[in-house]
Amino acid sequence: MTPIDLNADLGEGFGRWRLTDDERLLSVVTSANVACGFHAGDAATMRRVCELAAERGVRIGAQVSYRDLAGFGRRAMDVPPGELAAEVAYQIGALEVFARAAGSRVAYVKPHGALYNRVVRDEEQARAVVDGVVLADAGLPVLGLPGSRLLELAGKAGLPVVEEAFADRAYTDEGTLVPRREEGAVVTDPERVVSRALDLARRGEVAARSGRRVGVRARSLCLHGDTPGAVDLARRVRAALEAAGVRVEAFA
Amino acid sequence: MTPIDLNADLGEGFGRWRLTDDERLLSVVTSANVACGFHAGDAATMRRVCELAAERGVRIGAQVSYRDLAGFGRRAMDVPPGELAAEVAYQIGALEVFARAAGSRVAYVKPHGALYNRVVRDEEQARAVVDGVVLADAGLPVLGLPGSRLLELAGKAGLPVVEEAFADRAYTDEGTLVPRREEGAVVTDPERVVSRALDLARRGEVAARSGRRVGVRARSLCLHGDTPGAVDLARRVRAALEAAGVRVEAFA
Amino acid sequence: MTPIDLNADLGEGFGRWRLTDDERLLSVVTSANVACGFHAGDAATMRRVCELAAERGVRIGAQVSYRDLAGFGRRAMDVPPGELAAEVAYQIGALEVFARAAGSRVAYVKPHGALYNRVVRDEEQARAVVDGVVLADAGLPVLGLPGSRLLELAGKAGLPVVEEAFADRAYTDEGTLVPRREEGAVVTDPERVVSRALDLARRGEVAARSGRRVGVRARSLCLHGDTPGAVDLARRVRAALEAAGVRVEAFA
Amino acid sequence: MTPIDLNADLGEGFGRWRLTDDERLLSVVTSANVACGFHAGDAATMRRVCELAAERGVRIGAQVSYRDLAGFGRRAMDVPPGELAAEVAYQIGALEVFARAAGSRVAYVKPHGALYNRVVRDEEQARAVVDGVVLADAGLPVLGLPGSRLLELAGKAGLPVVEEAFADRAYTDEGTLVPRREEGAVVTDPERVVSRALDLARRGEVAARSGRRVGVRARSLCLHGDTPGAVDLARRVRAALEAAGVRVEAFA
Repeated sequence: MTPIDLNADLGEGFGRWRLTDDERLLSVVTSANVACGFHAGDAATMRRVCELAAERGVRIGAQVSYRDLAGFGRRAMDVPPGELAAEVAYQIGALEVFARAAGSRVAYVKPHGALYNRVVRDEEQARAVVDGVVLADAGLPVLGLPGSRLLELAGKAGLPVVEEAFADRAYTDEGTLVPRREEGAVVTDPERVVSRALDLARRGEVAARSGRRVGVRARSLCLHGDTPGAVDLARRVRAALEAAGVRVEAFA
Repeated sequence: MTPIDLNADLGEGFGRWRLTDDERLLSVVTSANVACGFHAGDAATMRRVCELAAERGVRIGAQVSYRDLAGFGRRAMDVPPGELAAEVAYQIGALEVFARAAGSRVAYVKPHGALYNRVVRDEEQARAVVDGVVLADAGLPVLGLPGSRLLELAGKAGLPVVEEAFADRAYTDEGTLVPRREEGAVVTDPERVVSRALDLARRGEVAARSGRRVGVRARSLCLHGDTPGAVDLARRVRAALEAAGVRVEAFA
Repeated sequence: MTPIDLNADLGEGFGRWRLTDDERLLSVVTSANVACGFHAGDAATMRRVCELAAERGVRIGAQVSYRDLAGFGRRAMDVPPGELAAEVAYQIGALEVFARAAGSRVAYVKPHGALYNRVVRDEEQARAVVDGVVLADAGLPVLGLPGSRLLELAGKAGLPVVEEAFADRAYTDEGTLVPRREEGAVVTDPERVVSRALDLARRGEVAARSGRRVGVRARSLCLHGDTPGAVDLARRVRAALEAAGVRVEAFA
Repeated sequence: MTPIDLNADLGEGFGRWRLTDDERLLSVVTSANVACGFHAGDAATMRRVCELAAERGVRIGAQVSYRDLAGFGRRAMDVPPGELAAEVAYQIGALEVFARAAGSRVAYVKPHGALYNRVVRDEEQARAVVDGVVLADAGLPVLGLPGSRLLELAGKAGLPVVEEAFADRAYTDEGTLVPRREEGAVVTDPERVVSRALDLARRGEVAARSGRRVGVRARSLCLHGDTPGAVDLARRVRAALEAAGVRVEAFA
């Protein structure tokens, strides 16, 4: 059985505002998607999160976003590809300073929010994100949705790609995510989330909304951590995986 | 005779707005203080300036600033030292991506505007800037004002320090700058600027406001480039230095 | 013959950066679309432009935009309607302070850049803009493109609507604008711009790209002023209109 | 016995981030200092807070700040007076839209954070704040610290002034606040806070740090509400005042 990585968004405060419980999340995940200042994350927070992650041996990833603090990066934007590529590289570089100062390094890149959703299909922006990653470091893995344009283009550009799945999101019979606006898109029952995480990690499959089981490849599971309940659930998922003999381990 | 470096601020536009004539300035200076996004400088501009600078063999420096786009970094701010250090490191890291992608690297750091002025005397902020530079790269030279707290603390922290002088600013008998708010603080006559540049580069001295000649150590001269006239004057200064046999060359 | 209004974008600098030649433009136009701080326009500039406009008897309009300084409001954004409506109202209110302090008032609203283009067809955002205008002042006229969703919904909401045309843009046989990305979308020859302005103002028609004459209703002509040549051309347009006996006058 | 006003900061979230428990605070205070977008407060939040305040008959005040989202307006800035005045007016105008839309209006102005502290003594900035208020509305009351330069200059400019006191801050024998960096500057024991509020409201005096009783004039008490405990304490203060027969009522 291949090991499974657990990733979550961290450092998503800004200045006076806090959002993610970074300390507790870092005791659960193996990969930390650190906000880089464009949708959240000020420099001092980035530094602190990198230090904590390095201490605990958690991987540091650059969670890159549109430049949109007011919208928390959740509003799709028609950013010209040259600008977007440069903005992606800028964010990776800024985070790299703190990762290195903590004795670690930026080990992967994951787009955030509206950018994550957009590059599932938008070829121009997906290519821009890949260009930005290559600008920063031509060997940096990209973490994203299986079947997305982003991972396809990242692979073609020679970047390692890492596929992720969501234990708390409904899937279609085709193994794609049910859009959030549809009913039942989010799984809220903790028991079901835990059992789905086990299915994904052990069998590479999950019950689709229809009830049919569908294959979903994933080297990493994305956990949410922006509420106290979410962190507790993340802990339970990890404990259940370990109890079932699944190795919880960052991707190479 | 030691060679002289010529430095100027570049890439000081933002989005739709342009300020510095980067192309022309890069044919004059040996060191480019590139804005890193906090007082000016978007990611795409930073990338372009780094590419142009690398092509022309001009050194790339991180022109770090308070986070203040609305005030162009010209308003002193009481930023707590931990935040300031992290912000300085953030800016250096962001620029480093573009410098490396262009085949070069960030070769020095120079504070901008109100931060430059503040760290002449403010020990806490000077130390924070030094901490930020060390976070990013413990061997990075710091460019600043002779006698400033910044250079003193940078030296103590083991960072190489580079002193600069201004051919278009008046000096006191003690060899310090006449504050801008005082009359005669800025020298506007082009002939005088050129002859002062020659005095500074060849003899390490300049006529103070009183008429007395005072010693001013400087391995670099700071040129201004935010008006068409300024770029022309910068060209004349360089031509005059070369005609006088002064080697115009970046610091090591 | 109905009089014609001339409108242009003003106050589009930000902090240290300048873009529009506000003084000169204010001697040409009858309506000033003043940037309100979201794509351009800081508070001090807004104040100054309102004072100058009021002195010259030029109408003040709120040029409202997406919150996007880095992109100058030129990047379409999926802003949820509740946020967009509130942001539109916020901008109008901020400008109103300076208009009133100068003895005038905000007399109309015109969306800027990507928002202007989006609300031509996007019903949700068009409705949000209308909601924002109504929040601020239920009697405020909206200036926009004939046939746009924005003007349609503004009219239904009881807001006065004002249609504008562009002497320097190509039109289709249906009387709509040729998209900018198509060849020949922009008319650059000054003579042609002037004669098209005359056609639009005197006959309510213009030569389409095909050569056919098409009717284009417009109570206002939009002039561009972000280059020195553009201001000169704007002057020529106004002079030609006046020489031809067209009354150049703000809409009621 | 004169009635006492209770004021607190509200609407201090930004986009995705929340800080103040606006709903609960609005059931306690009589005056709401609403953040206007410069240190906190997005347009949609401002709208919502104004609607809630108007429903409950709570006064709406503009809590104006330096432009500093990253620092939450807590970092003193050397903003030139012309810019500062315009920024103050901008914020008041933006809030006025939402106050009026809710059937209320901006009824006073209170500076926030570092600006509040700075205008206690800084004449230039105090004057700039007054100029900004006058620009927006020459009859708007200013809420601030007794003895501050701000209230002095506001009074001279013909603006109504309202003095406030803090039940949870220590006072010197001169009746001024003990600086936060000194020991014992903040009173944390809830019983003492309540009894000090009673002393301030009923007798216009409070026990100084030395134990001596000093006179402190105040028509308003400032309550804090950025933690759950703080809101509970605010409720207790109000209940104790009412039980003691103090009329809790906004200033005229």
